[in-house]
Amino acid sequence: MRGNLDEGEPHGLPGTYLNSVYELRPLPYAEAGYGYPETGETLINITNSKIIRLLVDDEPLDVRFGRLDSHERVLDLRAGTLTRTMTWCSPAGPSIRMASTRLVSLTQRSIMAICYQLEPIDSEVQLVIQSELVANEPLPFLGTDPRTAAILESPLRALENLANSDRIVLVHETKGSGLRLAAAMSHEVETPGKKTVDVEAQDDIGRYTLATRLKPGERLQLVKYVAYGWSSHRSRPALHDQVAAALAGAELNGWDGLVAEQRAYLDEFWRGADVEVDGDPEVQQAVRFALFHILQAGARAERRVIPAKGLTGPGYDGHTFWDSETFVLPPLTYSVPDAAADALRWRYSTLPQALERAKYLGLKGAAFPWRTISGGECSGYWPAGTAAFHINADIADAVHRYLDATGDMEFAREVGVDLLVHTARLWRGLGHHDLDGMFRIHGVTGPDEYTAVVDNNVYTNLMAQKNLRAAAQLVLSLPDEADRLEVSPEEAASWRDAADKMHIPFDERLGVHPQNDGFTDGAPWDFRRTPGEHYPLLLHYPYFDLYRKQVVKQADLVLAMHLCGEAFTAEEKERNFCYYEAMTVRDSSLSAQTQAVMAAEVGYLDLAHEYLTETSLMDLRDLEHNTRDGLHLASLAGAWNALVAGFGGLRRRGGRLSFTPQIPETLVRLEFRLRYRGSLIKVTVTSQEAVYELVEGPPQKIFHHGEDHVLRDTLTRPIPKRTPTLPRPDQPAGRNPLGRLLQVPERYRTQSR
Amino acid sequence: MRGNLDEGEPHGLPGTYLNSVYELRPLPYAEAGYGYPETGETLINITNSKIIRLLVDDEPLDVRFGRLDSHERVLDLRAGTLTRTMTWCSPAGPSIRMASTRLVSLTQRSIMAICYQLEPIDSEVQLVIQSELVANEPLPFLGTDPRTAAILESPLRALENLANSDRIVLVHETKGSGLRLAAAMSHEVETPGKKTVDVEAQDDIGRYTLATRLKPGERLQLVKYVAYGWSSHRSRPALHDQVAAALAGAELNGWDGLVAEQRAYLDEFWRGADVEVDGDPEVQQAVRFALFHILQAGARAERRVIPAKGLTGPGYDGHTFWDSETFVLPPLTYSVPDAAADALRWRYSTLPQALERAKYLGLKGAAFPWRTISGGECSGYWPAGTAAFHINADIADAVHRYLDATGDMEFAREVGVDLLVHTARLWRGLGHHDLDGMFRIHGVTGPDEYTAVVDNNVYTNLMAQKNLRAAAQLVLSLPDEADRLEVSPEEAASWRDAADKMHIPFDERLGVHPQNDGFTDGAPWDFRRTPGEHYPLLLHYPYFDLYRKQVVKQADLVLAMHLCGEAFTAEEKERNFCYYEAMTVRDSSLSAQTQAVMAAEVGYLDLAHEYLTETSLMDLRDLEHNTRDGLHLASLAGAWNALVAGFGGLRRRGGRLSFTPQIPETLVRLEFRLRYRGSLIKVTVTSQEAVYELVEGPPQKIFHHGEDHVLRDTLTRPIPKRTPTLPRPDQPAGRNPLGRLLQVPERYRTQSR
Repeated sequence: MRGNLDEGEPHGLPGTYLNSVYELRPLPYAEAGYGYPETGETLINITNSKIIRLLVDDEPLDVRFGRLDSHERVLDLRAGTLTRTMTWCSPAGPSIRMASTRLVSLTQRSIMAICYQLEPIDSEVQLVIQSELVANEPLPFLGTDPRTAAILESPLRALENLANSDRIVLVHETKGSGLRLAAAMSHEVETPGKKTVDVEAQDDIGRYTLATRLKPGERLQLVKYVAYGWSSHRSRPALHDQVAAALAGAELNGWDGLVAEQRAYLDEFWRGADVEVDGDPEVQQAVRFALFHILQAGARAERRVIPAKGLTGPGYDGHTFWDSETFVLPPLTYSVPDAAADALRWRYSTLPQALERAKYLGLKGAAFPWRTISGGECSGYWPAGTAAFHINADIADAVHRYLDATGDMEFAREVGVDLLVHTARLWRGLGHHDLDGMFRIHGVTGPDEYTAVVDNNVYTNLMAQKNLRAAAQLVLSLPDEADRLEVSPEEAASWRDAADKMHIPFDERLGVHPQNDGFTDGAPWDFRRTPGEHYPLLLHYPYFDLYRKQVVKQADLVLAMHLCGEAFTAEEKERNFCYYEAMTVRDSSLSAQTQAVMAAEVGYLDLAHEYLTETSLMDLRDLEHNTRDGLHLASLAGAWNALVAGFGGLRRRGGRLSFTPQIPETLVRLEFRLRYRGSLIKVTVTSQEAVYELVEGPPQKIFHHGEDHVLRDTLTRPIPKRTPTLPRPDQPAGRNPLGRLLQVPERYRTQSR
Repeated sequence: MRGNLDEGEPHGLPGTYLNSVYELRPLPYAEAGYGYPETGETLINITNSKIIRLLVDDEPLDVRFGRLDSHERVLDLRAGTLTRTMTWCSPAGPSIRMASTRLVSLTQRSIMAICYQLEPIDSEVQLVIQSELVANEPLPFLGTDPRTAAILESPLRALENLANSDRIVLVHETKGSGLRLAAAMSHEVETPGKKTVDVEAQDDIGRYTLATRLKPGERLQLVKYVAYGWSSHRSRPALHDQVAAALAGAELNGWDGLVAEQRAYLDEFWRGADVEVDGDPEVQQAVRFALFHILQAGARAERRVIPAKGLTGPGYDGHTFWDSETFVLPPLTYSVPDAAADALRWRYSTLPQALERAKYLGLKGAAFPWRTISGGECSGYWPAGTAAFHINADIADAVHRYLDATGDMEFAREVGVDLLVHTARLWRGLGHHDLDGMFRIHGVTGPDEYTAVVDNNVYTNLMAQKNLRAAAQLVLSLPDEADRLEVSPEEAASWRDAADKMHIPFDERLGVHPQNDGFTDGAPWDFRRTPGEHYPLLLHYPYFDLYRKQVVKQADLVLAMHLCGEAFTAEEKERNFCYYEAMTVRDSSLSAQTQAVMAAEVGYLDLAHEYLTETSLMDLRDLEHNTRDGLHLASLAGAWNALVAGFGGLRRRGGRLSFTPQIPETLVRLEFRLRYRGSLIKVTVTSQEAVYELVEGPPQKIFHHGEDHVLRDTLTRPIPKRTPTLPRPDQPAGRNPLGRLLQVPERYRTQSR
């Protein structure tokens, strides 16, 4: 539920989304090819229940008119509420004080509630409140394709409407995807004087109208309860009953009950998830903002997708990509492991489609979609879609991470082994042994989308290697599941063999790993002649030009060094980091966090801090000018990754957690919490030492800077100093990290005028 | 003008096309990118003037009804006419004999004429003839895209219609591209008895109606003259006048005059172009059929495009590609050099667009479009469009070939030097020097479209090398033009330098040239598991799978060996030929001729003959089941290329013609003619010797199997025997050349039932 004003206008973009409620739209091609998906999925704006309009005497409340004496909105990360307070003087004279608090319940999945309060300031006023449900609300311009616009401008077909004194209900269905959804609302009102109430409903609107008068010193409180439900299977009456029942549950709790539940839920979350950053209040706020949104996106997804923008906007059509598993699941795994399991169970639920897709593409195993909501491939450009096979290894790595963090063998048997085996099969079939017996993976695209359809992308090959080994190891410990999946010992051996023979190119002349075969033979990008307004490059240069030159959109080889660190020596890490730093333009918001993590590992701590700041403030400062389309969930997760994997040095190593903490001089103290195999571990890092505390649960073996320890209660260890041998690298001209944003950017100031 | 029946029905596909009369259509993308063209061009079916309907008593002449006692159609390649004779017995009883002869004039560019004759066989009949002009005629199903279908189903908007006793005129314009076109017709009739004539015109139809009666022994003759004109600039009245004037000219000549002119024109053509093949009557017929169609496509194009299908059908949207310069221009250059010059002048006329396109793509020089009608890029899939930069070298090579064949220095100054310089500039800017100083061209697609966006495609690099050298050499001899084009000595030196340092990969392990960097490290395609019905592969396998494996759609490295033969040793040619032969599936009709040429050069003469047969019969036997969409002009040209460059061994070598003739035992004699620098040379090859005859013009220096000769009148030389060292290679299972098709294929027999 986007943070639109109660009265609906003005708005940037109104938006209310239900996880996995999408519409279908055609994907057109000037020249089509085999395997191109013909239909895409698009997240739609569903019935808006946030609207509470107000008429003060004759004048509608609208902040663009009259006089706004005060206006403040607070997102309370502990309470899980959005509170708005304002004092408004109508153009006609009277002033009122308004306060509204909105809550999307984390404990009652269907429920949203608003507590709306009014009091007149200096004279008696007549107040008319209209609380609404609005379907198919008009949206700003949606782009030029007439077919898409037609579908998305009015995506819902009305099935039922009901209005009575107990509740108002609207039931709709999507036209193409055939999903049914219901929204219901009820109201509790406290007001001292006489009031009239009216309810009405039509196809696309339900309206509760309350009229009353208030004198100064008197106060009105309206609590609005809203329930949502959707299904692709259940009938209209079943959905109607479902939302009515959910409403009854919410009413039973009452507003105070919902608020208390929300707070208790979040207290438990923060106890295991909070990150404290002393010395940088901006990053401190940002990382908590990030964790709150990751929780919102993942905690109650419950075997549904976690999209790249969560449910915060229509960007990327509401699709999920590899970044969910790679960047969002790490913080979720170590703070709300059950939510990480659910996200992977969602992937597992799409396994039939991934098996089918692989078969259709002539491959073995599973080929998960590059972008999707329901599990079907929605990518319309295969070089940066189908060819980005690494998503399969990213999913496998997330499974491995979850299993490592929880030891959840039930999950391993039911979900994990299937995902690992079918992705391993994909790699075994996608790659081949060359004349020298080495295993090669040709014609794929790695994370860097400025280099596509290449041979032996190092990231892909190393992640595939991990995937193959993890699958071979897991089937060994689960022989029954291996039988069920018809994995013979020979097949598992072929995975180990492919992993052992994996070809990893290395450029001896430069002493660095080329991102893929031939990469370091490519022409350098001419950064000097690239003006600042030509970023992001993909909007100003053709793909063929980007692909053939040495220019990197986002960490690729550097991400391989983070996730597959054992494959590189410390010297290689340093040389590679510096080599790629000079050509990485970060036209993707995914990149900064990885550069932060590896800058920290290599020892450029200040640089790491700058990248940490960039990834943390991506949305709070709208650094890419597109937060309107929704939050960059992976970039937000990057705040946690940069702090915990970067300055904390968290890695998985030989079945236990490994830390190599060190913080830059610009920070005073870093403290983070991890849930790991039933334990809660707190790590506190200062410039001199690290303190590991076992807050609860059984002892855990850990590494501290390579030292082997068993954490029983508290462990304090000094931090060795590390200095890189090469000077701190430069970025391409004008592409240095956005760093410490000590002042509010110009355009914010402009906007607030 | 497609060979539809006079009465219009039944038809496969009606079609009448004017060179460069096209409509615009949107090119949609599921995910668009910088540099993608938004609008494409599509050849449209213009006003149909072929229709002459006939009512015999009460019954319309229709071969599907009544009894067809005889029916024959003859395309006379010497006369340049299509004659049809039939005897038809109406369902109502009476029989008639009909003969029609149709001629699209090669001498009067605007004119088409039909001589239509009727006689009753055994009873008096009443005959009503309707001779028509029909615009926007209904076409069979055009595909699923509603926007495209809407545009192309009714592409013409009526501007004017006129019907009087002298003529009927229709003037239309295209809706999007704004081209105006006019069609006019007039009639001469001879009939013994009483007749009535009626004329009428509406927006989309002009109709001349003649009613009369004939007794047995009497005969009616109707001559229909048709004139066409079009323009993007001239006004409606100007176009109207233009077609009326053209009609007057045709009428002045009369039917017999037009027939005589056509014959004289073709006699002169055949004198310099005929190819005789003793021992294979099928190929004999095919190569003449081919030359006739190449003449039709090219002779009167006059600075307009020669599309891949000529003007024979709507296939490929009527676009031209690289195959015009590479495959169609060789026979045209050596038989009607002026037509080749005109085709290149058309390319020159599009140079401003190519310069603009290069600039837009961030490149120097000119980037000619992969597919186009008017010069704008119409390719909707960049990996097999924009990335196929070799088209620029193909154009340059055609310029070089033409200059070599004619010594036309006026052309060199006006057209040639511009084309060579701007394409050389493209290569210099597209490639780069690597750390070792070698010149590399990365991220391009060669002729083989089953391998795309690769580094150092050998064909591209060698053709670019030729292009760079030819440009450097030409500017040396044209200093004024060099100044005009601002080519400094340093720039020309940089071209020579890039050419000299051109990186040509070679695989020492296998002793073959990889088609591009890393090609021979790719997985082999599993031909054994590829069923026959899975060809063409692109309709059954995704691009990523084709691209990453060793499978070749069409000759690529093998074409490099034909066009850049000096870059390979004889041993390399043999090894390369055999290596690629085993993985070339010929899913492109362009491939067989090149395989024929190189099979002949290497010494597999029988294999060359089989490929010759395949390329020759592509359309006469509808080998790819799509001749309905139009003829494969380049494949037809391949009959000439396979005979003359293959068995004749024609190459350009050091500014003179070189021949290495040898014919397989399956042929008795091969004779071909070439126009070269003002001379006409006839070459006659038998298994023992070659006879070179200077039919007219000055003496010419030639090579015969490497021997240096001056041809003054007749030269007779023995043919050395050559035997390859490797056994004749196999093709992928089921993809052997279609070879000698001694019997009519099954489906023809089925159709005729």
